[in-house]
Amino acid sequence: MNDYSIKELLAKGKKALQEEVVIKGWVRSFRSNQFIALNDGSGQNNIQIIINYNDFDTETLKQITTASALYVEGKVAESKGAGQEIEVMASKIKIYGYAVPEDVQETILQPKRHSLEKLREQAHLRFRTNTFAAVMRVRNALSFAIHQYFNKNGFCYINTPIITGSDAEGAGEMFTVTNFNLDNIPKNKNGNIDFSQDFFGKKTNLTVSGQLEAETAAMGLGKVYTFGPTFRAENSNTTRHLAEFWMVEPEVAFYDLEHDMDLAEDFLKYCIQYAIENCKEDLEFLNKRFEEEQKQKSKEEKSEQNLLEKLEFVLKNKFIRLSYTEAIEILKNSKPNQKKKFKYLIDEWGADLQSEHERYLVEKHFKSPVVLYDYPAKIKAFYMRLNDDHKTVRAMDVLFPGIGEIIGGSQREERIDVLKQKMKDMNIDEKELWWYLDTRKFGTVPHSGFGLGLERLVLFVTGMNNIRDVIPFPRTPKNAEF
Amino acid sequence: MNDYSIKELLAKGKKALQEEVVIKGWVRSFRSNQFIALNDGSGQNNIQIIINYNDFDTETLKQITTASALYVEGKVAESKGAGQEIEVMASKIKIYGYAVPEDVQETILQPKRHSLEKLREQAHLRFRTNTFAAVMRVRNALSFAIHQYFNKNGFCYINTPIITGSDAEGAGEMFTVTNFNLDNIPKNKNGNIDFSQDFFGKKTNLTVSGQLEAETAAMGLGKVYTFGPTFRAENSNTTRHLAEFWMVEPEVAFYDLEHDMDLAEDFLKYCIQYAIENCKEDLEFLNKRFEEEQKQKSKEEKSEQNLLEKLEFVLKNKFIRLSYTEAIEILKNSKPNQKKKFKYLIDEWGADLQSEHERYLVEKHFKSPVVLYDYPAKIKAFYMRLNDDHKTVRAMDVLFPGIGEIIGGSQREERIDVLKQKMKDMNIDEKELWWYLDTRKFGTVPHSGFGLGLERLVLFVTGMNNIRDVIPFPRTPKNAEF
Repeated sequence: MNDYSIKELLAKGKKALQEEVVIKGWVRSFRSNQFIALNDGSGQNNIQIIINYNDFDTETLKQITTASALYVEGKVAESKGAGQEIEVMASKIKIYGYAVPEDVQETILQPKRHSLEKLREQAHLRFRTNTFAAVMRVRNALSFAIHQYFNKNGFCYINTPIITGSDAEGAGEMFTVTNFNLDNIPKNKNGNIDFSQDFFGKKTNLTVSGQLEAETAAMGLGKVYTFGPTFRAENSNTTRHLAEFWMVEPEVAFYDLEHDMDLAEDFLKYCIQYAIENCKEDLEFLNKRFEEEQKQKSKEEKSEQNLLEKLEFVLKNKFIRLSYTEAIEILKNSKPNQKKKFKYLIDEWGADLQSEHERYLVEKHFKSPVVLYDYPAKIKAFYMRLNDDHKTVRAMDVLFPGIGEIIGGSQREERIDVLKQKMKDMNIDEKELWWYLDTRKFGTVPHSGFGLGLERLVLFVTGMNNIRDVIPFPRTPKNAEF
Repeated sequence: MNDYSIKELLAKGKKALQEEVVIKGWVRSFRSNQFIALNDGSGQNNIQIIINYNDFDTETLKQITTASALYVEGKVAESKGAGQEIEVMASKIKIYGYAVPEDVQETILQPKRHSLEKLREQAHLRFRTNTFAAVMRVRNALSFAIHQYFNKNGFCYINTPIITGSDAEGAGEMFTVTNFNLDNIPKNKNGNIDFSQDFFGKKTNLTVSGQLEAETAAMGLGKVYTFGPTFRAENSNTTRHLAEFWMVEPEVAFYDLEHDMDLAEDFLKYCIQYAIENCKEDLEFLNKRFEEEQKQKSKEEKSEQNLLEKLEFVLKNKFIRLSYTEAIEILKNSKPNQKKKFKYLIDEWGADLQSEHERYLVEKHFKSPVVLYDYPAKIKAFYMRLNDDHKTVRAMDVLFPGIGEIIGGSQREERIDVLKQKMKDMNIDEKELWWYLDTRKFGTVPHSGFGLGLERLVLFVTGMNNIRDVIPFPRTPKNAEF
């Protein structure tokens, strides 16, 4: 007897006719004491199990309820129903686990459409819903595509530290990691906290980025990337922020900013293409969901393309590349700026771009993904390479429709004197980053890299709206359940 | 002009003869003002660059020092030297970054053999050494193999939370994560710490395992795995322990312990096979290193096989499967037990096995990887499935030569009543794990999983001795530099 996952069996289709098979899964519905829709998580589609209720005892039949778990033996037959080639005529059914209908009613396991917000409180159970399972499978495909892309292109995966003693990255507020008993923190003679007694002998935090460490690796291994969790202790309760999220950071020796932009575009297209090819059913399901959602939107808010069209559009078009200076000109002369519709009006060069400006460029002006580059030095990080104009740095951001910034990157400052001056100007302690400066001493080279927040990419590809719905267990202010 | 990585060019070999190429990298050595050995991190082997010193100005020649970074244009020619098919006759050289010989002398960048211990203090520079770069490339290959194995077999990658509010997993001491100002921790009326004012509104820690969360995912998605950092706040300064390490945890619905053991064996063999196929040069280099090291060992300590033979041996042989009870019998009657050579003598059933016992079974008695199963319930975690003897649980450990436990897993207790009783007996609060118990309420199924510490696998495959030498930036007591 062949033991198949439901996805495997459905893929085999009519080739499996007459086979005796074993199928296991959870009941999605049980109609007319005859039709069981069974799902095992392997894919979006259920297999229909047909039972002749005369063949089974009443006790077994009673336990076939929504969400209960079954072991089924039976023969594969041609399906008379629409939308499915095959079904399984059950000869034996074993109940692995019964689910009390009243309990199920109260929780999320109903086949009806659940409120996504309610589901978040039941994060441990939402893997059993069609929407969240589809999102998780797309997230899985994108994660694999990321590793495969870098593997194919000769990058070495590097695990930069999660717990870091480095305090100088300046990318945001950091969580403290400690092994102190918080009721009794040791102090030194001067009344200050004696971190030398803590586990690591110093103050330690959760990383906000692996970039600086990845740079040191690229200086030996050439092409490297990180892919791991990063953290922000920022009190932002929005649909776009998480306190814990997964970040991908490639870093490449001998790359300048042009190479970096090429890499970012090629990489994004590869990942999206991979998802389209490997998540057909799930993306079709999410596309329907997206279209349903669009129906409730005003004409203004409505997307011109459905989800699948949006993905194809990104694949087929070359991203627009535009300097910050050109962008400012466009924004200054734009209708919403002149009619004072922007919340932050653009009146001079040097202004930091807000989400409204990025979205105007991408969604209204160009109707295309945009790569902005050569930003004012003052609004960017210390490690970005200074241009000869001494005003701008070799930074670039990739902006996506509906998402805004999906990638941020730069060519790094490889000239030690320029770097030191920059650190001095920005009050960054050289002693803290002695090891970072070292990489500019022993055969420094031009190099570049970028960061991609995985959840932003998953949001874009799944068409979901809230970042909490694309990660299994979201961490946000006042929320670390499970 | 073709822009190759050194690995690509060497792979092309004689097919590249007469091609004009661009090569970039760091100088490993410069002999006789004529032969430059250049490496760019893409692989173990250097390309030889030949220069006619009459063609270059003195200033350029002076800057070609060990560790300096070069851009080279030239024509590919047949090599007259041994051990290399091709070399590059330089027509143009640009110095990207000079390295002062005196500075290099003081650091680790000498082509001589460096002390691994010294290198750890220079973790940011050790990517430039042959040994560490080889280890990193093998680590990269193993990480990719892990993702590829699970991807091919229909597993969904799940990112379980790093910051967790769950305190009941009991796998070891946990680090505290907080956003409190440690100088001024808020207290409530009763003088206790007011965690409701902390970022997450409760006490939070760094995860020690994603298993319990992964189980909830497997209950919807069927086959899942985690692969991410985990943490132990244990003050163990050994060659086998890290405070931060990467763990792989598959969890599979409908799997019993037999399936779990099959999965573990197949998975390990796949990863090792992948490394052998994809890291030939690096493993040959590490094999030589291993053989050199063996020469300094006493007859007693000496390994019977070299590194490559050890890897092949694991691939070719079926792992021995042995119950705990059988293992105790063997150990009781073993020479070292009877001659009282074991530090911990085995005299009765129920004893926890120590590393010396595991290594005796693997290295002396069976001379093979061993899977031990059905351990006494008392020495194992609450979530492992109780056998009908009410004394043992469906646990299994995979033991490897030189490493000891490389995988630990179990079939999970899916029966809610048995699970609750176990938690009560072990003083684990039901309220803390309400969500874990929930998965046993709504269609519970038999399921199993295991955990693999990535660094243990990298140690085994590279033949390195200290776990700090197989992770880029090791975190250990009193050490969180970089």
